[in-house]
Amino acid sequence: MTKGFTVWLTGLSGAGKSTIAQALAQELRERECPVEVLDGDEVRENLSKGLGFSREDRDTNIRRISYVASLLAKHGVAVVTAAISPYAAARAEARERIGEFVEVYVRCSIPELVRRDVKGLYKLAIAGEITNFTGISDPYEEPEHPEVIVDSERETAEQSVSAIIEALEIRGLVPALSGVLS
Amino acid sequence: MTKGFTVWLTGLSGAGKSTIAQALAQELRERECPVEVLDGDEVRENLSKGLGFSREDRDTNIRRISYVASLLAKHGVAVVTAAISPYAAARAEARERIGEFVEVYVRCSIPELVRRDVKGLYKLAIAGEITNFTGISDPYEEPEHPEVIVDSERETAEQSVSAIIEALEIRGLVPALSGVLS
Repeated sequence: MTKGFTVWLTGLSGAGKSTIAQALAQELRERECPVEVLDGDEVRENLSKGLGFSREDRDTNIRRISYVASLLAKHGVAVVTAAISPYAAARAEARERIGEFVEVYVRCSIPELVRRDVKGLYKLAIAGEITNFTGISDPYEEPEHPEVIVDSERETAEQSVSAIIEALEIRGLVPALSGVLS
Repeated sequence: MTKGFTVWLTGLSGAGKSTIAQALAQELRERECPVEVLDGDEVRENLSKGLGFSREDRDTNIRRISYVASLLAKHGVAVVTAAISPYAAARAEARERIGEFVEVYVRCSIPELVRRDVKGLYKLAIAGEITNFTGISDPYEEPEHPEVIVDSERETAEQSVSAIIEALEIRGLVPALSGVLS
């Protein structure tokens, strides 16, 4: 059995967490790691329906993700989570619980996110039509010492995935891609 | 990787689900299956804090357990759940979601449960001091076609575990205990 671990993506809405999570999962599968992506929206549907976006509810949501991640990682699964997880204390608690924890800050500036605004949410948040919107009307505490920082404003998802894989290789958590040397 | 599956224990409070779950998990570990027990109380703490015991809240709790069980089973884990799960429809939904699903009805009569009353809950429920108490003031829908029925009134936990293991062996879900034939 391979050793389980969790790659914990954190960052603002629209920064590219889900895209990077899916591309990373694909890359890990190619290295024959069993993989599970716990995406924020899917997890809210399955584990946290009814919770809102107060600090307390966000913390509860993050605790549930970390509980499930810890169970999967314990059984050898490479878990990739993609939730905003804005509070440093909640991320620290997840790190504590999970053990092999690789925190990845998916960085993107607010002006760029407002420019992209793929789902139209920033416009609504700025207009005050969505409350508790991280980065606009709710805090985002940047990670102080994440294992990896990727910048979706300056690099492609592919480059971000490479940086994360490199961090996993350094920690001995994933094998090098077979065939590369042949 | 072994094939994952879920043994879904259902039955009244105090019928012996947790005891059987732990003994079954031990037996499965001896057969080198990776095992995870999702016990009702622990799951409520980790996934469903704040939920009560209305039908809706119970259904939500069961959906969360089945979501986590399905993720673990997908990665080869033998999952044992121990939640009252009183509603047939919710159990059917769990069966649908999980795939390899072995429903075990842990049967025990109400008079015997009232006599045991290990946690003193039946006394309180009968006195009306606990509402929505399954079997007293809330329904329990007996499984109509469970894969296994065990009877904690007439058999030991060891005998119950043997019956469950036999059902798993018949389905090719667990290997026979090595050494038995040597």
